Amino acid sequence: MADAKKAWGGRFTGSMDEFITRFGASLPIDRAMWESDIRGSIAHVRMLAAQGIMPAADAEVIEAGLREVFDELAEDRFVFDNADEDIHMAIERSMTAKVGPVGGKLHTARSRNDQVATDSRLHAKGLASDLIEGVVALQETLLARADEQFGVVMPGYTHLQKAQPVLLSHHLLAYAWMLQRDVTRLQAARAAADLSPLGSAALAGTTFPLDRRTVAEALGFAGITPNSLDAVSDRDFVLDLAYACSVAMMHLSRLCEELVIWSSDEFGFVTMDDGYSTGSSIMPQKKNPDVAELVRGKTGRVYGDLVGLLTVMKSLPLAYNKDMQEDKEGVFDAAATLSDCLRACIGMVATLTFNEDRMRAGARGGFMAATDLADHLAAHGVPFRDAHEIVGRLVLDCERSGRTLQDLSLEDLRAASPAFADDAVAAVDLDAIVARRSTEGGTGHDAVKAQLVLARDAIAGTREWLGSLAR
Amino acid sequence: MADAKKAWGGRFTGSMDEFITRFGASLPIDRAMWESDIRGSIAHVRMLAAQGIMPAADAEVIEAGLREVFDELAEDRFVFDNADEDIHMAIERSMTAKVGPVGGKLHTARSRNDQVATDSRLHAKGLASDLIEGVVALQETLLARADEQFGVVMPGYTHLQKAQPVLLSHHLLAYAWMLQRDVTRLQAARAAADLSPLGSAALAGTTFPLDRRTVAEALGFAGITPNSLDAVSDRDFVLDLAYACSVAMMHLSRLCEELVIWSSDEFGFVTMDDGYSTGSSIMPQKKNPDVAELVRGKTGRVYGDLVGLLTVMKSLPLAYNKDMQEDKEGVFDAAATLSDCLRACIGMVATLTFNEDRMRAGARGGFMAATDLADHLAAHGVPFRDAHEIVGRLVLDCERSGRTLQDLSLEDLRAASPAFADDAVAAVDLDAIVARRSTEGGTGHDAVKAQLVLARDAIAGTREWLGSLAR
Amino acid sequence: MADAKKAWGGRFTGSMDEFITRFGASLPIDRAMWESDIRGSIAHVRMLAAQGIMPAADAEVIEAGLREVFDELAEDRFVFDNADEDIHMAIERSMTAKVGPVGGKLHTARSRNDQVATDSRLHAKGLASDLIEGVVALQETLLARADEQFGVVMPGYTHLQKAQPVLLSHHLLAYAWMLQRDVTRLQAARAAADLSPLGSAALAGTTFPLDRRTVAEALGFAGITPNSLDAVSDRDFVLDLAYACSVAMMHLSRLCEELVIWSSDEFGFVTMDDGYSTGSSIMPQKKNPDVAELVRGKTGRVYGDLVGLLTVMKSLPLAYNKDMQEDKEGVFDAAATLSDCLRACIGMVATLTFNEDRMRAGARGGFMAATDLADHLAAHGVPFRDAHEIVGRLVLDCERSGRTLQDLSLEDLRAASPAFADDAVAAVDLDAIVARRSTEGGTGHDAVKAQLVLARDAIAGTREWLGSLAR
Amino acid sequence: MADAKKAWGGRFTGSMDEFITRFGASLPIDRAMWESDIRGSIAHVRMLAAQGIMPAADAEVIEAGLREVFDELAEDRFVFDNADEDIHMAIERSMTAKVGPVGGKLHTARSRNDQVATDSRLHAKGLASDLIEGVVALQETLLARADEQFGVVMPGYTHLQKAQPVLLSHHLLAYAWMLQRDVTRLQAARAAADLSPLGSAALAGTTFPLDRRTVAEALGFAGITPNSLDAVSDRDFVLDLAYACSVAMMHLSRLCEELVIWSSDEFGFVTMDDGYSTGSSIMPQKKNPDVAELVRGKTGRVYGDLVGLLTVMKSLPLAYNKDMQEDKEGVFDAAATLSDCLRACIGMVATLTFNEDRMRAGARGGFMAATDLADHLAAHGVPFRDAHEIVGRLVLDCERSGRTLQDLSLEDLRAASPAFADDAVAAVDLDAIVARRSTEGGTGHDAVKAQLVLARDAIAGTREWLGSLAR
Repeated sequence: MADAKKAWGGRFTGSMDEFITRFGASLPIDRAMWESDIRGSIAHVRMLAAQGIMPAADAEVIEAGLREVFDELAEDRFVFDNADEDIHMAIERSMTAKVGPVGGKLHTARSRNDQVATDSRLHAKGLASDLIEGVVALQETLLARADEQFGVVMPGYTHLQKAQPVLLSHHLLAYAWMLQRDVTRLQAARAAADLSPLGSAALAGTTFPLDRRTVAEALGFAGITPNSLDAVSDRDFVLDLAYACSVAMMHLSRLCEELVIWSSDEFGFVTMDDGYSTGSSIMPQKKNPDVAELVRGKTGRVYGDLVGLLTVMKSLPLAYNKDMQEDKEGVFDAAATLSDCLRACIGMVATLTFNEDRMRAGARGGFMAATDLADHLAAHGVPFRDAHEIVGRLVLDCERSGRTLQDLSLEDLRAASPAFADDAVAAVDLDAIVARRSTEGGTGHDAVKAQLVLARDAIAGTREWLGSLAR
Repeated sequence: MADAKKAWGGRFTGSMDEFITRFGASLPIDRAMWESDIRGSIAHVRMLAAQGIMPAADAEVIEAGLREVFDELAEDRFVFDNADEDIHMAIERSMTAKVGPVGGKLHTARSRNDQVATDSRLHAKGLASDLIEGVVALQETLLARADEQFGVVMPGYTHLQKAQPVLLSHHLLAYAWMLQRDVTRLQAARAAADLSPLGSAALAGTTFPLDRRTVAEALGFAGITPNSLDAVSDRDFVLDLAYACSVAMMHLSRLCEELVIWSSDEFGFVTMDDGYSTGSSIMPQKKNPDVAELVRGKTGRVYGDLVGLLTVMKSLPLAYNKDMQEDKEGVFDAAATLSDCLRACIGMVATLTFNEDRMRAGARGGFMAATDLADHLAAHGVPFRDAHEIVGRLVLDCERSGRTLQDLSLEDLRAASPAFADDAVAAVDLDAIVARRSTEGGTGHDAVKAQLVLARDAIAGTREWLGSLAR
Repeated sequence: MADAKKAWGGRFTGSMDEFITRFGASLPIDRAMWESDIRGSIAHVRMLAAQGIMPAADAEVIEAGLREVFDELAEDRFVFDNADEDIHMAIERSMTAKVGPVGGKLHTARSRNDQVATDSRLHAKGLASDLIEGVVALQETLLARADEQFGVVMPGYTHLQKAQPVLLSHHLLAYAWMLQRDVTRLQAARAAADLSPLGSAALAGTTFPLDRRTVAEALGFAGITPNSLDAVSDRDFVLDLAYACSVAMMHLSRLCEELVIWSSDEFGFVTMDDGYSTGSSIMPQKKNPDVAELVRGKTGRVYGDLVGLLTVMKSLPLAYNKDMQEDKEGVFDAAATLSDCLRACIGMVATLTFNEDRMRAGARGGFMAATDLADHLAAHGVPFRDAHEIVGRLVLDCERSGRTLQDLSLEDLRAASPAFADDAVAAVDLDAIVARRSTEGGTGHDAVKAQLVLARDAIAGTREWLGSLAR
Repeated sequence: MADAKKAWGGRFTGSMDEFITRFGASLPIDRAMWESDIRGSIAHVRMLAAQGIMPAADAEVIEAGLREVFDELAEDRFVFDNADEDIHMAIERSMTAKVGPVGGKLHTARSRNDQVATDSRLHAKGLASDLIEGVVALQETLLARADEQFGVVMPGYTHLQKAQPVLLSHHLLAYAWMLQRDVTRLQAARAAADLSPLGSAALAGTTFPLDRRTVAEALGFAGITPNSLDAVSDRDFVLDLAYACSVAMMHLSRLCEELVIWSSDEFGFVTMDDGYSTGSSIMPQKKNPDVAELVRGKTGRVYGDLVGLLTVMKSLPLAYNKDMQEDKEGVFDAAATLSDCLRACIGMVATLTFNEDRMRAGARGGFMAATDLADHLAAHGVPFRDAHEIVGRLVLDCERSGRTLQDLSLEDLRAASPAFADDAVAAVDLDAIVARRSTEGGTGHDAVKAQLVLARDAIAGTREWLGSLAR
């Protein structure tokens, strides 16, 4: 027989047995769920007593013990034991040490499998709600800046090429709407977790006359899972949450990419607050948009978390398999990362300075008024095809002489075509160009004002929903 | 200057120019959206006429031209031109060739950017609905088999170790519930696509007095997008659909993994229909579960499609960027793959033979009745700890003598403990063990009957929803 | 029994049987390997004859038939049959139709499993070599531009903030070195494929006295696989190739991201050739860097291909499983995408215009000379801490007055500190700053010249290696 | 202005400033690299002294300070400061506190950018070597079991269907060869890290007359990086390591999938040692292969790490960007996970019991001898087509009467065809079937013996290579 004892030599400390115990332990990860675990256990024993499965007195003793453990964990006084492999065992062991052998009855009509599923679902619901709070807070920050900066004109881009001038507020609101979709996705992830699996036991249900619906209600679940095999091996709600985090991070990566580009010397549209930048001890001129870059980079790890979870679940036969123990670390990391990134973005967006002059100057460049100038000619009887050509030549002239279309006088215009009317100069006025795009959802001032109202309504709707959870 | 003309030598046919044209072309992919494109254009010109932006006569001519193109495409008579880079250009070119210069007016108050977004959303909605049809059809197949096989007992597993006996119907229903969640996810993906971006133009809205809501309604959209910059660069609905496909494929991979294992000589729980197996010209005994394996394998490509799309969207600044042209191939492949795999699974599940004897024999092995036997003793006054030990010894005896717990007579049991009551033998009866797990969602016969009703209701709900789309 | 016949209604054409045949068919994908397949078969029959396993006359007849099929395929005259599920069957069927029953002997001592593995390996080797050709061609293009633009100074960035001036040639060479690592990775992928699995048969080897090494040599393999079970189920070489493509695409995505940013009005460092840009029929000023964006976007699909393949292979038991049929499409797509993107980049890089003036102007801005100015003071006895402060104040002055450090006269400097020596103005000279960074690998002119030599040597090494393959 | 101060309410402790500091800190991750950091710094100051850039006395003082810090870290006595954002700052701060202001000179001619790159490369080399040790140890365990179990026959599978009997040793060796490819991949990853970037400074090289090659040699690097911009922004070596870990995990997932299936009651080929299984307090018969399942599950996280890192690097412009700080956690996790999983597999494989009887019984079932029986007839003049049919009927008879082909007597055979010769019964003898597959790489006894020699040679080669690193 191969000598397994010294597997891989002196580099490793601890015996193989200790190693395997550590390898299989989930405590470092699942201890985050302690609150959900105790809440679930209390609801369970109460129901057992109500159903006559356990004497009421026993249930009370167990609940009291669990509450003691709760306080110890809440106050960071809880003492873990080396033998505690997961948070469920740790809590049960400690409770039983407090209340004596009756504590062993807690596990009546319950298995680790449905207990873990219950805890995970309660915890996932909490994570989803917290993340929605964060998303709303970033939306509010964006709206506050959009309000405050109302009227500031900047270049709108496609392909990172100047396309048409837009209101900065319109641009900021684009992100508010992306985030609104993240709210929807996080709500869906929360709803996916919102069924109680308690009573599914190991895989087949139990022989005890449980009242699953009462426990579900006590724990705030919207209902119960319909199939015990599925209940102990379903991790869709974990995937849904990791996916919602992934898309939200993608949105933040887009915002941060823009802020990095806008912070460059060449664009200069924004100046980061010092608290969100770092300098260089060697190059005194440097001011790096570190926070934006880091958020952008952290998108990768959240994508990775999602891929990891999808990979774990692929091809697993029914019902519970130990592979599923790997479900938590990925989604906890995804949620924590998104939470941190939202908070960082809130502070960063709230404190950055918009350089209105640079934006407006940028909007004057790039000949973004060309379309409106051609439209002007077309409106005064010049066939669009000809109008397009006339304006094309004007653009070329300006490019050669280093002027913008806004630098041209009425005379300059009329030299190119007598069809230019008295209000031709107004056609290239940035504010007028913006104002003209007045259809719903457009960048026109009135349209953006209406959009702000819609966005505020959407946020109010989410706030109300969040409030309803607490009730 | 480097000689780009012969980039990379004789291996390549065609000039660099031709190559770049082909490289940038999306026609081979986006031609799938031709129907959506024409529907969108017709709604657009009608609105332009209604709003007085275009003479009604022009709109009618254009619509007539579009309908001709529609018929050609529907009947596979449409002739593509080498210069057609995408389906939008191809249709507009062909229509204009039919109706003359007035055709050029179709593009009034519209840009390629909002047109592509509109087509993609209409197409995504259709894909989502079709996939839901497929999911429901597989659910119905599973339910039909669960009905037909009601009462068949098989081993339930955790860790691929025999755990407790369950009804085959219960096991099949577990998959029906997974698929029910896929319905929810696909509905969410459809809802994400269900806003009309038309009127967003290139990025900033238009100067024309459009009626966006009427167009949206005409196209069956639930509403309009609120922000033009976001509207032309939002691909969340594509991600949502690819994600929904990924999770559904994960579910199918679990089903197929089980069918592969169950088809093995060692398990022998199912026999695949010949139409879903392949043999070997060399090894006459072989019957390979090819279809199940292929579905399982195709999970990988759908995961890959999702990762590809998430990667494309990461860090893209506003608004439209050419990278987004890569949004379609991945999601089309994901949807087509899921559609094929659903269809393959429907046929495979519908035609496979469940080997009831092998399942029941399997359920007798593995000492899965041990728990219920110990419970019996406990119910007759033996402390559970002692009961557990007594049964443990019985298991050991059986293992040594090659018997199952079901092989033991009452005398055998009483030799181990006089506490075994007259109905002790019934305690290990497989059907009785199953029946005893009668809590909601458990494997007990009555519980599974109730579950079948719930599942049928869920399916009926989806069917009704699908019907409402058509109305 | 569920009615599988009409699975999913009228939407689908073709019977379920036809569907399943199509579902399992790999011909649309594996037909790309026809050349490898025929080469492999010819080597196999020759060996069978040499070993006396097959009469030499039979081998000759079969080889002649295979050569006929080869010509038909090479000249695109081959007629596929509806029953051809894969390229191997198609070729064998056609050959047998030509030569009669003796054709059936081709499959002696061979199984589909080792045949597919052989074809895949031969094909993968060819893909890897072709991609290396493409990588080298892009390196050569970069070097040609680096040569041509030698001496052009541009801002070097970290965090997209101006950091220190560098030579454009140095910047371009950075990409040549990334690509050099891609060559190494592609060579490793090729080496991973470079063992002959022929003779492994279905999974266990054969009972025929094969000469595996002679076949391997005839096919240009470096050796034979050592274990038949592993040989028919190893797809590491496919993963290695997909991974090499992924990293190469990542490198191209970085280059293209820079070109997109550099093409912006704000940076203006490069102007794309018209052949690599698109305009807008509405906005005449637009010139979009489409090709660069598309390459950047296509990175996603190649990452997705890699993820798909890793997912397919996870948890597959030995030996061959049908899941592995999904190995080809992903890697073929990855290779074809990288090949196209390399070609597109070659043309784009070869034809773009570097705007030297904008680069130099950019290098003057951003106070990138601050470090060297402080160093100057330090070299003339001022403690670095004080020097840093003095220069910091100068930077602030310049910022307020809209000047660069290069705008300052010696008098200006001496007003800030009398310690500035006569050659102080030279300290901020861009070319001097660049030249000073003369350590190996630095941006100094001489260092970059030495680097060009190294890069040329590296390329020559690859060319020589490629040449050795052909011999 | 939006109120950023209370971003997101009472849920968060600590001010926004503290949060952002923590958000940007990499210390919790990069402290793992402390040893590499100090080694790198010592080599750097020695070279500075040798080149006359720093007085030898200063270098000695700094080195002494660094060695003190080294001892503190090695002995876990080092006291971190709240302000330490990364391990580099922590070490420099502590050293300077010990030696006084001269400590500040350590940073001469070096930047954080090339320092981080150096540390990462040294650390990655160490991780790669350690992982190779682990891979070799698992190979040795597999070989020891293959040696010990030589002669044991088991069913070989394709599609999880019994195909042909093979030696258990042959099956175990298949994994040894997969792992041999992992050695190659890890060596390539180590080689990718094996160039010194020191001297690249922030991005452009330095103005100091460094001797880069001497530092590289002192640190054990094989050479120096050729381009400073690339050097500070290249993370290919991180990707290569994460990729090598991913493929190795895929291999382990295949092994573990097999062990899970083989542990099932139905297969029963292996019995896990109690130390690698868990039981159930409720179901006394359960013995779950937890360790194998957990290794299989952990494949997901390593795939996720790779995807995360590829995502981070996509589209980053030159040179260093803060996103790259996210490079370490993923690869450290991948390496640690693979290391743990290798160790777990070594112990699991070393201690598991192979149930020879079950394997042999399995090999008798499934009619795997059919091919050889048909070959026997063919060898005695029966056309193969007829032979195939005769054997097919025999298989059917056996199936109906519950016999295996090994149960048939010569009379039974002759009843089916008089062509069966005297040694026909030997044709279905399992050991003879195995022995007959004697081509190189086949499962024949002699072929497997030769293979064991090759595998031992391969391992010896790796051991020698590992030894050469230490020299």
